[in-house]
Amino acid sequence: MAVRAAVAGASGYAGGEILRLLAAHPEIEVGALTGNSNAGSRLGTLQPHLTPYADRVLEKTTVSALSGHDVVFLALPHGQSAEIANELGEDVLVVDCGADFRLSDAQAWQRFYGTPHAGTWPYGLPELPGARAALVGSKRVAVPGCYPTAVSLALVPAYAAGLAEPEAVVVAATGTSGAGKSLKPHLLGSEVMGSMSPYGVGGVHRHTPEMVQNLSAAAGERVSVSFTPTLAPMSRGILATCSARAKPGTGPEELRAAYEKAYQDEQFVTLLPEGEWPSTGSVYGSNTVLMQLALDEDAGRVLVVSAVDNLTKGTAGGAVQSMNIALGLPEGLGLPAAGIAP
Amino acid sequence: MAVRAAVAGASGYAGGEILRLLAAHPEIEVGALTGNSNAGSRLGTLQPHLTPYADRVLEKTTVSALSGHDVVFLALPHGQSAEIANELGEDVLVVDCGADFRLSDAQAWQRFYGTPHAGTWPYGLPELPGARAALVGSKRVAVPGCYPTAVSLALVPAYAAGLAEPEAVVVAATGTSGAGKSLKPHLLGSEVMGSMSPYGVGGVHRHTPEMVQNLSAAAGERVSVSFTPTLAPMSRGILATCSARAKPGTGPEELRAAYEKAYQDEQFVTLLPEGEWPSTGSVYGSNTVLMQLALDEDAGRVLVVSAVDNLTKGTAGGAVQSMNIALGLPEGLGLPAAGIAP
Amino acid sequence: MAVRAAVAGASGYAGGEILRLLAAHPEIEVGALTGNSNAGSRLGTLQPHLTPYADRVLEKTTVSALSGHDVVFLALPHGQSAEIANELGEDVLVVDCGADFRLSDAQAWQRFYGTPHAGTWPYGLPELPGARAALVGSKRVAVPGCYPTAVSLALVPAYAAGLAEPEAVVVAATGTSGAGKSLKPHLLGSEVMGSMSPYGVGGVHRHTPEMVQNLSAAAGERVSVSFTPTLAPMSRGILATCSARAKPGTGPEELRAAYEKAYQDEQFVTLLPEGEWPSTGSVYGSNTVLMQLALDEDAGRVLVVSAVDNLTKGTAGGAVQSMNIALGLPEGLGLPAAGIAP
Amino acid sequence: MAVRAAVAGASGYAGGEILRLLAAHPEIEVGALTGNSNAGSRLGTLQPHLTPYADRVLEKTTVSALSGHDVVFLALPHGQSAEIANELGEDVLVVDCGADFRLSDAQAWQRFYGTPHAGTWPYGLPELPGARAALVGSKRVAVPGCYPTAVSLALVPAYAAGLAEPEAVVVAATGTSGAGKSLKPHLLGSEVMGSMSPYGVGGVHRHTPEMVQNLSAAAGERVSVSFTPTLAPMSRGILATCSARAKPGTGPEELRAAYEKAYQDEQFVTLLPEGEWPSTGSVYGSNTVLMQLALDEDAGRVLVVSAVDNLTKGTAGGAVQSMNIALGLPEGLGLPAAGIAP
Repeated sequence: MAVRAAVAGASGYAGGEILRLLAAHPEIEVGALTGNSNAGSRLGTLQPHLTPYADRVLEKTTVSALSGHDVVFLALPHGQSAEIANELGEDVLVVDCGADFRLSDAQAWQRFYGTPHAGTWPYGLPELPGARAALVGSKRVAVPGCYPTAVSLALVPAYAAGLAEPEAVVVAATGTSGAGKSLKPHLLGSEVMGSMSPYGVGGVHRHTPEMVQNLSAAAGERVSVSFTPTLAPMSRGILATCSARAKPGTGPEELRAAYEKAYQDEQFVTLLPEGEWPSTGSVYGSNTVLMQLALDEDAGRVLVVSAVDNLTKGTAGGAVQSMNIALGLPEGLGLPAAGIAP
Repeated sequence: MAVRAAVAGASGYAGGEILRLLAAHPEIEVGALTGNSNAGSRLGTLQPHLTPYADRVLEKTTVSALSGHDVVFLALPHGQSAEIANELGEDVLVVDCGADFRLSDAQAWQRFYGTPHAGTWPYGLPELPGARAALVGSKRVAVPGCYPTAVSLALVPAYAAGLAEPEAVVVAATGTSGAGKSLKPHLLGSEVMGSMSPYGVGGVHRHTPEMVQNLSAAAGERVSVSFTPTLAPMSRGILATCSARAKPGTGPEELRAAYEKAYQDEQFVTLLPEGEWPSTGSVYGSNTVLMQLALDEDAGRVLVVSAVDNLTKGTAGGAVQSMNIALGLPEGLGLPAAGIAP
Repeated sequence: MAVRAAVAGASGYAGGEILRLLAAHPEIEVGALTGNSNAGSRLGTLQPHLTPYADRVLEKTTVSALSGHDVVFLALPHGQSAEIANELGEDVLVVDCGADFRLSDAQAWQRFYGTPHAGTWPYGLPELPGARAALVGSKRVAVPGCYPTAVSLALVPAYAAGLAEPEAVVVAATGTSGAGKSLKPHLLGSEVMGSMSPYGVGGVHRHTPEMVQNLSAAAGERVSVSFTPTLAPMSRGILATCSARAKPGTGPEELRAAYEKAYQDEQFVTLLPEGEWPSTGSVYGSNTVLMQLALDEDAGRVLVVSAVDNLTKGTAGGAVQSMNIALGLPEGLGLPAAGIAP
Repeated sequence: MAVRAAVAGASGYAGGEILRLLAAHPEIEVGALTGNSNAGSRLGTLQPHLTPYADRVLEKTTVSALSGHDVVFLALPHGQSAEIANELGEDVLVVDCGADFRLSDAQAWQRFYGTPHAGTWPYGLPELPGARAALVGSKRVAVPGCYPTAVSLALVPAYAAGLAEPEAVVVAATGTSGAGKSLKPHLLGSEVMGSMSPYGVGGVHRHTPEMVQNLSAAAGERVSVSFTPTLAPMSRGILATCSARAKPGTGPEELRAAYEKAYQDEQFVTLLPEGEWPSTGSVYGSNTVLMQLALDEDAGRVLVVSAVDNLTKGTAGGAVQSMNIALGLPEGLGLPAAGIAP
């Protein structure tokens, strides 16, 4: 019997990607699709690529519209998930693509989001130590941010193996879909094409405390993260260039071995053969993370570069992967491992 | 029991897209992967997005490597298919993504390709009148060219319904993957990005006689086609803007009705609701064709615009769809109808 | 003594491009810069590329702000030019980048723009027959639309030489800057990159009657134009693919000779050597038009492809070139002939 | 009397950009244009954007072809400049866009380039402390690498003011033109568009020792640089994200003051107003560097982001600017300060 799933926020980029994945998922039957300002619209008009659901009409995002499903995906602005989840009850699997339940540090939440902390749910990045087990059977999932997905997978093995000093420096490039469909001048095609620019510089991006949380947990001590996001002229993809000073005595074989061990059983994380470097184009539309590392002995730094699709593994794919685990389905069911290239 | 498939030309763009689709096809088991200059290489090095087959090693393209499969996909330069197909024998389904067996007019073949005509195979565009029936049970399939796919689907209903004069004018924009992986200066990213340019202008592009063939068959008289292909700054997609003078008395309702009737039962062709126009971004990575039409009463022309992904519906998707039909599988099995957007 | 110039609409793409060109013009001193919603803002915040004027502050667009200059460039929404021009008086050279004074046919104006016709000014496309003479000493200039610039230069010589039938078919691709800075979902980078789409299909684009006017004047009979604009994933540039059935007996040499003669003395129009085709990348940021032609004898059509930068030759460059003529300065003064590539 | 200039390597991207700038330079007359494999070709066929020189024919790069000019620009592969310069003699200003004479450390040269060190010429980045004076009247100029231009200008003020620890971490995104016109698979448009990828990771990029040299000179101690270049889907531009741990006690005002002081008299370097961040799109085709800084107090790091056009300020513009200084012309003569946007 099919699992019935609803998607709240189906007119946005995250919601649309969830639907694209569910359309290929053999165990899912798509139920209610909801939106806010777009309620009443035909989905095909808003998301013309979703031809299998083109004639569905968006309902208003309300608890009653979302009730009666086995799984509810929330792709909503921050701050709206708690109330809906509470009213949907404990029997429904709620997979939240927003930030509300990602952080365990209430003070960090308050500082970066400016609202009271709603709580902490099992974290939907199963490749992190301990995370998979917490998802099994859970009725609540906090899907990680797209940047923390790319950065945590890139640096956690080094920290977990005690090979890096607790001051990470991360510069990441993202495609414009990371900013959603918001109508802002700097997101116009004319402004974006042919141009790279930074934003949220100097430690103010909201994904920073999430990275700090994940890296610190692996390191067993507080890791600071200098994080600079940049906007690249592409619609999808994150390339995260991550580094930290190597602990004294760290050698290249030891470093590589730590990553091989961390990911040898992971179907969605690939440490590339030496000499090959990841590109975001290779993970386009897939749930795969590609990564490579180097030890820069002159500069004394561990360097790891990872590539993910911000909408797939970075959001919707991570959400579906976590749902599979929570429901006891095969973890990769319905998820594309191959990217679309060129 | 799984259908075993081999792919000749697995290091190119068409071969890679066939593999991406086969990876999601529930009835296919991928056997030999072959190449020429790349024989001996790890697939993952050449096609890093194909993570499920990354560790496969390319064999040399030979009949013996390709033997022992139920289906062989040929993604080879023109002129190499006939010999391989002959030697593989009549029991093997051979799906040729090259041009060799597309044209029935030996003189047109000779003129545009400069070599002797090899013959004509059932044509892998099932949405054309009569084409689907010819594919059922066939052991040979000639996959159409990417442009003829977009253009034939756009204009055949008008010609079949007798609504257009037999002189078509087509201007189409293609992504650069249509040119393959050839190392030519004008295909460098630096040259392509931010720039549009025409090529093969003035009736010399090799896909012209294929369009003439399909439109003439529908019209029951010879249709001339003025075809101008242009190279657009994107990696995938074809947007075909097609027009012909309307036959006297043609009205907009009659025109629309002809298209609705032609495609009402087709799962991969969508005539959009009035007022919505297709974009190539909406069919990215999918087997779907989106189209829209207008009757320009001032200029007296029927105008149809279609969007396809040149590598999916325009090549590999059309190939897999035809294979499904030939093998008696559900026509859409394993094929994505939803595009990847944004 | 320097010519003092004001720019109304300096926060938009057309106004910004005028300023970029004026910054390199040896005879111009830039005076007032005005805007509407952006009045009071620092120019550098709105147009960070215009570093020479970064600290200028926009005034409100009023007659008093624009008074006291020798030249006033209007880069305003349609319908606002007449009143300002009237109040500025007859002594000031007014160069209008809007549509208000381009059409001589009041009925066509009314049909496409829906407002009363304001009149007709000398047309700022000096390469058209008779146009240059009308600009000399004029105090009013109607800068052509960007598409009509590309299309008229491409087809007028064929019509003027009597080589083409009076039914033109034009498909043009434009960069997104042609749509201005308007905050519309389909203009977001995420939507535009990797995608081509048509718009204004079926004879409804407002530049159609302007093309009809120019081609008909050259042909000496009414020329119909089937015009389909498409949006390409690039910020600038127009590639216009233009064709018409050849008049009986037209040969390729005769066709080529007509174009060579038409443009042999033009510094900003280049008919490329045979075998070379124009690209928009080659005219990026320049006032140059590149074109090439072919006679498709199978289809019986004259085919001309032209490339322009919609913001330079297609708007601001045409405006400055016309200003130079009107003021008696060397026609190419301050205008770049070389494009910026790659 | 005009200064006569020759350009060796006129068919490449750097040579083409030099020509674009020289076309707008009021004191320059362009003489010989030379190439290697392209000798004998029409420039317009190779560089169709350079319409002012389209009919020039490339000569073979030889000393005799380059003789008899006041200035010779060398845009050649590394290792070819020394011999040509020697033979041209001491009277000719030789501006070398290659790497041969950039480094003063012969050992670093040997390690990164693998050939004997040719020497050290005055360094063509006049905004560095002491550099301008060394260029005045010089007959030899070593134009900096594109990355070192962006990175040195971004970090030198912090090091010169003693505000940063001597371990810099730099991640930079470059447009594809930085790789030249080489026909490599990963530079094809199909591969590049929609994708970001790193290269030269782990301290092996040849521009690293040049950065080390410039930053160490400013700091008065050896500065290590962890440098990761990434390839972005755009043809031009470098966005350099540069950071270093702040020296204890460094405050934001002090940091900002150091940069304001360093660049207050520089016409081509702009420290943006607080709250505004640079984009490469804003410096497209210009000789301008835009930058902004932040002090990330949580991570304890000084962060500076700079944007340059790799071909203009990063190569050809820097070359012409240095030529102007060497010849005693106004430093900014003929150089565009405004970028081309959007």
